[in-house]
Amino acid sequence: MYTIGIDFGTLSGRAVLVDVRDGREIATAIHEYANGVIDSTLPGKREPLPPEWALQDPLDYIEVFKHTVPEVLRLSGVDPKEVVGVGIDFTACTMLPVKADGTPLCVLDEWKANPHAWIKLWKHHASQPQADLINAVARQRGEAWLDYYGGKISSEWFFSKSLQILQEAPEVYHAADRLIEAADWVVWQLTGVETRNMCTAGYKAMVQGGEFPSREYFAALDPDFADVVDDKMCRTFAQLGDKAGGLTPQAAAWTGLPPGTTVAVANVDAHVTAPAVKAVEPGIMVMIMGTSTCDVMLGERINVVEGMCGVVPDGIIPGFYGYEAGQSGVGDIFNWFVENAVPPVYHEAAQQAGVSLHEYLEREAAQQAPGEHGLIALDWWNGNRSTLVDANVSGLLLGATLATRAPDIYRALIESTAYGTREIIESFEKRGVPVRELVAAGGLPEKNALLRQIYADVTGRPLKLSGSSQAPALGSAIYAAVAAGVYPNIQEASEHMGKLKDEVVMPIPENQAVYDALYAEYKTLYDYFGRREGQNHMMKRLKQIRNKAMGQ
Amino acid sequence: MYTIGIDFGTLSGRAVLVDVRDGREIATAIHEYANGVIDSTLPGKREPLPPEWALQDPLDYIEVFKHTVPEVLRLSGVDPKEVVGVGIDFTACTMLPVKADGTPLCVLDEWKANPHAWIKLWKHHASQPQADLINAVARQRGEAWLDYYGGKISSEWFFSKSLQILQEAPEVYHAADRLIEAADWVVWQLTGVETRNMCTAGYKAMVQGGEFPSREYFAALDPDFADVVDDKMCRTFAQLGDKAGGLTPQAAAWTGLPPGTTVAVANVDAHVTAPAVKAVEPGIMVMIMGTSTCDVMLGERINVVEGMCGVVPDGIIPGFYGYEAGQSGVGDIFNWFVENAVPPVYHEAAQQAGVSLHEYLEREAAQQAPGEHGLIALDWWNGNRSTLVDANVSGLLLGATLATRAPDIYRALIESTAYGTREIIESFEKRGVPVRELVAAGGLPEKNALLRQIYADVTGRPLKLSGSSQAPALGSAIYAAVAAGVYPNIQEASEHMGKLKDEVVMPIPENQAVYDALYAEYKTLYDYFGRREGQNHMMKRLKQIRNKAMGQ
Repeated sequence: MYTIGIDFGTLSGRAVLVDVRDGREIATAIHEYANGVIDSTLPGKREPLPPEWALQDPLDYIEVFKHTVPEVLRLSGVDPKEVVGVGIDFTACTMLPVKADGTPLCVLDEWKANPHAWIKLWKHHASQPQADLINAVARQRGEAWLDYYGGKISSEWFFSKSLQILQEAPEVYHAADRLIEAADWVVWQLTGVETRNMCTAGYKAMVQGGEFPSREYFAALDPDFADVVDDKMCRTFAQLGDKAGGLTPQAAAWTGLPPGTTVAVANVDAHVTAPAVKAVEPGIMVMIMGTSTCDVMLGERINVVEGMCGVVPDGIIPGFYGYEAGQSGVGDIFNWFVENAVPPVYHEAAQQAGVSLHEYLEREAAQQAPGEHGLIALDWWNGNRSTLVDANVSGLLLGATLATRAPDIYRALIESTAYGTREIIESFEKRGVPVRELVAAGGLPEKNALLRQIYADVTGRPLKLSGSSQAPALGSAIYAAVAAGVYPNIQEASEHMGKLKDEVVMPIPENQAVYDALYAEYKTLYDYFGRREGQNHMMKRLKQIRNKAMGQ
Repeated sequence: MYTIGIDFGTLSGRAVLVDVRDGREIATAIHEYANGVIDSTLPGKREPLPPEWALQDPLDYIEVFKHTVPEVLRLSGVDPKEVVGVGIDFTACTMLPVKADGTPLCVLDEWKANPHAWIKLWKHHASQPQADLINAVARQRGEAWLDYYGGKISSEWFFSKSLQILQEAPEVYHAADRLIEAADWVVWQLTGVETRNMCTAGYKAMVQGGEFPSREYFAALDPDFADVVDDKMCRTFAQLGDKAGGLTPQAAAWTGLPPGTTVAVANVDAHVTAPAVKAVEPGIMVMIMGTSTCDVMLGERINVVEGMCGVVPDGIIPGFYGYEAGQSGVGDIFNWFVENAVPPVYHEAAQQAGVSLHEYLEREAAQQAPGEHGLIALDWWNGNRSTLVDANVSGLLLGATLATRAPDIYRALIESTAYGTREIIESFEKRGVPVRELVAAGGLPEKNALLRQIYADVTGRPLKLSGSSQAPALGSAIYAAVAAGVYPNIQEASEHMGKLKDEVVMPIPENQAVYDALYAEYKTLYDYFGRREGQNHMMKRLKQIRNKAMGQ
């Protein structure tokens, strides 16, 4: 028996066909979105989108079903009847306005020229003014739920984006019968059933204890927003691991699976990863590292952690409090650097060495001792999700001299993201949520040994690695197995199907000591530029640390 | 009648043969130093030099005489007998230990493996611990001269470098009969006469009113340093515009000029530029812009200006107080950027457009409105000469996002150096030394129209341009004409031989307004990172300024 997990990422969708007995990944297929991330102009248009916009095209998601599921069936040779369930996971909050029958507004001639009719991708940050209002009104009214989101709602979230539509394009808002997460929308396309999964509802739409914020609260944001829940959403939520419905004949035709095949309730790419790496008990922080990093962890109690993205009962695994935090730029920053700030000599050297430029720079940077480059960066090229929840902060590089070279900066950028992780860990622990160990999933830690060691050294914690290079898709297959009734609960499915590598990366004490000093500098900048407090003069100390690292 | 001015730069020496009647530049020749800047290993050695070291080879300077003077004679067809004088200018403080007959220690087998036997180039910054001591002891003893150097002696200066030799290589110090500026050393090689020019003595060796600091002061630095002046230097100084001596037969053979030809007292490249651009009255700040920028200006009174490099009576033109300030990294920073942080796509585009990468990036950056890139940089890649006098601060780039591109950073770096200039101007004016207008000399402002406009906009002052693209060499030819008795004084020689372009770059008011706001941000960072005070949260404001610049 098999299940198929389908992971919808920022640039592509990936299906994995998995053996439910042992989690063996039999076949994989990937399909890139034709329109990718829409951040300069709408497809076929010339008018530039404003800064901070990031959209997607829903039809790209349907193409993923059509291409990847038949492909994994073909590659594996598995009889479609042996596939007992399909699960999906998605970036979040990635949301769109649709008609009552699920038709996205952006496919309708009437609306397709309006950017607000398109899907707002998770990294669409232009809703910051709405997020500011959402936060200010919540604080002013003393909304109890605010604490469970680290005291701040992000511009990335559901109501920030929805309110931006209302305020900037009321005609789109009013034309939309539903506002829905893309995760739930694709399940709707597969099953014909509109569900709202507990995970995105809890983490992105401020649902706590089964309730949205009050009508009075929404009215205080904008009178026209008062009935957003009853007009555009729904008040029932689907539990993770449950069945959403069965494949419609149309979706069966897209995929080559039998009509009626179980489809699991949708989930978020990060959260679904926890059971894929056997993190089904408290104290294990799972870092899903890609263009950005999402951290998920189980807790026994509900605690208020500064700048966390959220804590949601049953938000990852029913019966636990699911904590989420994150970093809005990680791989994105490294990619920015490699594409925009590395001179030809390294491009040529990498080509000659037959490796990617990332790999070449990693190799060069790995020659250095911690602190040798004399640099500190703030990893805010794409804003800061945790612990500041502020899309408007920006990247900083400090300590450059005429001797600074590309591998130095590359290493400093990796370190800056590790410091950002440590800041999150310390924030959790300060509020009584212990973080015993880290598990890293995603392409970044898998490919980059230097990064793995830096994360262990900077955080001072053992780092384990996902046993699968496609952990979210595996996770979706695990939820599908539970939804199909193969296992009674997620823990048991994880025990059979989840995977960790044997290797554990341990912190190196002498590196830790240097990084403790550098982290203190990072914190000073962090607080100064992120929190309006503190003052410092760190350059001399950085030079001393550098000299010391060079043995002088 | 003609004179030849020879300008010794950081990487090459340049001779210009000039008509003394009108300053017409008849012929030019350049010779690159074979060993350039020695900052990784000594020539032929493998052991790496420590960080912050920068050395040169004195034999490279002799080669300049041998190659360039015959070449300008050949190119011009001028009869050598019609050349009435030779003047030289040099980087400073660039100094070396020599024997009593002028032989540099570094050419002797016994000493050539010791880095301290070589010439310490102006940008050798490894003497910072000695500079720190020099400053601490001067403050503690209440040395009166300290105020005339902006309250701080630089690691670049004569006694910082000399004390480093004593403390790190006492054997070299004791083997040296003389410690001397390279400027005076090359004049010595031409004439056989050891002179000490008033300019370097005043600006780099703390001579005020004809006196060095006291023996007690030097003893307080290090007992073995007590007699540095009487043991290694001399107490008589040669006035600028005077004759140092006549060409020796050997030097005549090197150059092809008649023995006995007048050689002017040596001078500094920046200071010699003032008469070349007709800045022979107070209120005109001359910016000599190259790898670094040196600012020189005449004043009627002696005032104490924070962080100036120095104020020296008769230090530029006899009869005036000569003020000097500077920025330790300007063209160096742009070159660093172009060589180390620009991706291949721009290299290729520049090549296709048939322009240099600098020119291409300038063009692209010129498309932007001020503030549009959202960036602020601190121009401290090579430390900060004025107003902080601190070689240990380093570069900072703030405001980077995933959308930041190379031309954005290139523009931000140009702007950062203009902000640095404004900081210097404001420092002068705060202490009663008015700066009415700017004159820019050097390749940078000549080639880069964007840079010229940015400097005018950021400082709010009209910017004039040197009429010669080799102003220091022209200036040396002017001093040579005075030394040879063609003109009675420097002012009169400048009136006939100095040159300005007709173009005056005026500030554009709307740009000034944006730059006033950005400069305030720069100042905040400047004070915070440079002065241990202040606190700020500027990123949001930078984004607002950027959005405004983009018309949103």
